[in-house]
Amino acid sequence: MPHRRGFAHERDLVRRFWSYGFAAVRAPASGSKVKRVVYPDVVAVYKGRVIAAEVKTIRKPRCVYIDKNRVEKLREFATRAGGSAYIAVKVVGTGEWVFVPIENLVDTGKSFKITPEMLAQGIKLEALVSTIKGVRKLTEFARKDDSHEAT
Amino acid sequence: MPHRRGFAHERDLVRRFWSYGFAAVRAPASGSKVKRVVYPDVVAVYKGRVIAAEVKTIRKPRCVYIDKNRVEKLREFATRAGGSAYIAVKVVGTGEWVFVPIENLVDTGKSFKITPEMLAQGIKLEALVSTIKGVRKLTEFARKDDSHEAT
Repeated sequence: MPHRRGFAHERDLVRRFWSYGFAAVRAPASGSKVKRVVYPDVVAVYKGRVIAAEVKTIRKPRCVYIDKNRVEKLREFATRAGGSAYIAVKVVGTGEWVFVPIENLVDTGKSFKITPEMLAQGIKLEALVSTIKGVRKLTEFARKDDSHEAT
Repeated sequence: MPHRRGFAHERDLVRRFWSYGFAAVRAPASGSKVKRVVYPDVVAVYKGRVIAAEVKTIRKPRCVYIDKNRVEKLREFATRAGGSAYIAVKVVGTGEWVFVPIENLVDTGKSFKITPEMLAQGIKLEALVSTIKGVRKLTEFARKDDSHEAT
């Protein structure tokens, strides 16, 4: 995937967070000079509650692999910021964003993996936002989403 | 000042925040596509406490002018993030960073201004970091700095 496409998706996520009342930034192009500091692709903050996200895009349900080093950097960032780290997966076409906490990633040895099943059960952007804003708990949201799908 | 130089200073500030235990990011190049969202030059977070900063560099003491629109965007970002907004002024040569809260800026009508006197009394990076981390209050720091200068 060319870099420009990646940036477009990151910008899309930043805009969405912004529309929900968050402050959000996307990372700059990763130049050779910034080896020591690795940024998350997107950082979103609402009243001191921080989300650090690595962005991945898929066109259809499939396994998503994330570099172990990237996950460690994301974890480090979130720990310092006092926030939470997620892999934000965009399903291109539907335009839907699904968030998987890094704690849930599957360790394959070489890298971390998200299965299509995990994506299906992942946290939708709207649910994540509501949780961060303290409107609803994730568990409530999951239940409500389930019942919706059943109808 | 060419863009590359500005980025170098922003990177310097990010590295320093990082060395103090903060999570920090610098803004990406401001492209024409991101008119709707204007990022701070640097965002630093420590355990949910957020600093949004616009970066300025000077070579010797002088007045620093900041675009009103930029200050408003910075204020908006800090409000959403539940943090504080500063103009971070680097004195090139000494390499020292001084922080001026946007509330303290002088309104000249056309723009906002920082006078050399304000810079002399500004918050040093180390003092800001200690305050955010809850080690010392800014007032204590100011007093200690004053006594240092007097000796």
